[in-house]
Amino acid sequence: MNMNVLFSPLEQIDVRALADASADPWYNQTLCRVNDCVVRLGVVQGEFHWHKHDEEDEFFYVVEGTFIIELEDQVIELNPRQGVTVPRGVLHKPRAPERTIILMMEGARVIPTGD
Amino acid sequence: MNMNVLFSPLEQIDVRALADASADPWYNQTLCRVNDCVVRLGVVQGEFHWHKHDEEDEFFYVVEGTFIIELEDQVIELNPRQGVTVPRGVLHKPRAPERTIILMMEGARVIPTGD
Repeated sequence: MNMNVLFSPLEQIDVRALADASADPWYNQTLCRVNDCVVRLGVVQGEFHWHKHDEEDEFFYVVEGTFIIELEDQVIELNPRQGVTVPRGVLHKPRAPERTIILMMEGARVIPTGD
Repeated sequence: MNMNVLFSPLEQIDVRALADASADPWYNQTLCRVNDCVVRLGVVQGEFHWHKHDEEDEFFYVVEGTFIIELEDQVIELNPRQGVTVPRGVLHKPRAPERTIILMMEGARVIPTGD
């Protein structure tokens, strides 16, 4: 988890180059701060654990690949150019069957390892 | 400008379908609320006017096309998978030479016609 904010305001962010350079199997990098939120890049493959954020909504958008969000009573499958907001307090388990590039937006206070 | 929030939490957002369906030459639709921010979709071609937001940062991410942000002292050109945050108070003039699909993230209070 890379919680440092990689880009300053007005600094151009190249998601393609960052994704190409990522070696970690579950890469999660904060890109920039926008008001009280952050934009994060994920380059992921595999499973994350069940978790929730008590105080923060979390938005996911798929750039490339397939991102599956298991909820207690449904499964949301996101393909490229699809997104969803998981609201605060909702248990979810993300997984990616193949290498998948996502953008996330959430409150700047979220610790991405999950509450 | 469509300021209504189109999608509820946990509702799947299909950017491709929305973009395909947009007819307005400067389509700007709020997709969802995430904490104190909103995610917006733009399907744009042409020029917007010089403006700034005194209280809110604004993040732009290009899905398709080319999005050019003129600033007083530089020009930022964004191609697919590139993004940038324009911080509060900075005058900017966006334009898109061709039909361009962007995602924007900004404070929920921003009126997209500009201050």
